[in-house]
Amino acid sequence: MRPKPVVVVVEPETPGNVGTIARAMKNFGLTDLKLVDPPELDPDGEAYGFAGHAREDVLPNAEEVSLEEVIETYHTVGCTAITGEDSRRHVRFPFKTPVELRDSLKTVETRTALVFGREGRGLHNREIEQLDEVCSIPASDEYPVLNLGQAATIMLYELRELTVEQTQLPDVERLRAEEPDIERLYAYFAAFLAAQNYNDRKRAKTQRLLRRLIGRAHPTDREIHTLLGVFRQATNQLNEASEPEADSATTNQ
Amino acid sequence: MRPKPVVVVVEPETPGNVGTIARAMKNFGLTDLKLVDPPELDPDGEAYGFAGHAREDVLPNAEEVSLEEVIETYHTVGCTAITGEDSRRHVRFPFKTPVELRDSLKTVETRTALVFGREGRGLHNREIEQLDEVCSIPASDEYPVLNLGQAATIMLYELRELTVEQTQLPDVERLRAEEPDIERLYAYFAAFLAAQNYNDRKRAKTQRLLRRLIGRAHPTDREIHTLLGVFRQATNQLNEASEPEADSATTNQ
Repeated sequence: MRPKPVVVVVEPETPGNVGTIARAMKNFGLTDLKLVDPPELDPDGEAYGFAGHAREDVLPNAEEVSLEEVIETYHTVGCTAITGEDSRRHVRFPFKTPVELRDSLKTVETRTALVFGREGRGLHNREIEQLDEVCSIPASDEYPVLNLGQAATIMLYELRELTVEQTQLPDVERLRAEEPDIERLYAYFAAFLAAQNYNDRKRAKTQRLLRRLIGRAHPTDREIHTLLGVFRQATNQLNEASEPEADSATTNQ
Repeated sequence: MRPKPVVVVVEPETPGNVGTIARAMKNFGLTDLKLVDPPELDPDGEAYGFAGHAREDVLPNAEEVSLEEVIETYHTVGCTAITGEDSRRHVRFPFKTPVELRDSLKTVETRTALVFGREGRGLHNREIEQLDEVCSIPASDEYPVLNLGQAATIMLYELRELTVEQTQLPDVERLRAEEPDIERLYAYFAAFLAAQNYNDRKRAKTQRLLRRLIGRAHPTDREIHTLLGVFRQATNQLNEASEPEADSATTNQ
């Protein structure tokens, strides 16, 4: 099985950001947090306050390491907002976007470390030049510098395919209504239009309109069955309302 | 031109999260922040402290609104970690993932409001049921509840294609080396192998290996030209070193 990436933060300045990163790790199925020269993480302070449920495992299990150890052990990816402008220098160029990094890591089995820098200045050039790859989040040219915790959250979100075995979301594809039931809705709708003596010339067009509207919404079973009930009831009532004389005639016999 | 989405936060409890959201908005090209019943945002407090450069515009321009006004004016998307489990109830089902929401919004021109709930409980059912769509970030089944600021950051990141006109990243496609130069590298490498009398039987195989390694790395112009220089110099020196007798014979004449 593919080993999950570890997260390394070099000289984080504010405990709150360490907590935010720990929480994002737990949200996206990661466990190994490594810190280079971190601030003190007081169990009653901001790191634990920001960590959510990661205060129970990711954060207390965080390990202090040196960047040298990390470089020796892992395939290292330096995360930075500021990339090289062109190909003449190699400290921050070439780079991958998070999507490109994910697609690349999917193809190999490697122990990867995602390395984040300090809040104020990020990773120094003398650190980045020792790392194997550079990754940068595309953001607005006018203000591309993300907060450390927010950048890490996006990175971990984007790599979730490699790290989250089971999401909280139900598998919706299975829940689309069956085609025959959807076709039945169109038949009921046609009967409904007939029952209200809908303009003959417009009828086919209106039926097509419903088919297109429902078709692109990928309706659920529940939605289709509820609408079937709505149209059937309306059709029955319309048909009854249009035959009051026949009814009373019968009653009067 | 397609109007950019606005961001609405319903009853945020901590000013810090409002600042985080404002920063993410500026990072991803958004400007309109609307707050329903927010806490006081002290210019010397955490909201401004967390907002980065968004303290200059997004945050001070944030507008207090009611949820009713938002519902009346916008196509509303409720963001929540907790979706319906199946199709029997419609408050939180069906839902879109952020990627699906982006792909859907790309196809229409609409004024969209991304609506986030309070930190503790998110959006209430009575709020979500009035919104037009539900969006949920796929996360670990074991702990899918993201912090408010982190969830908003991911949503805005994922919608960046609709909101960021120009990223900070250079256009790398243009910077790939020219094919003839890459071919020249393979020729130089072949000459380099010849100059060192590399095993004849392995030579073609080793040349293919380099072609595959370079081929999948999409080298830059600078990388290719630097390597061309490295191999040319080595080849020249190897050739000189293998002809010492001819040289000294010439000298001795």
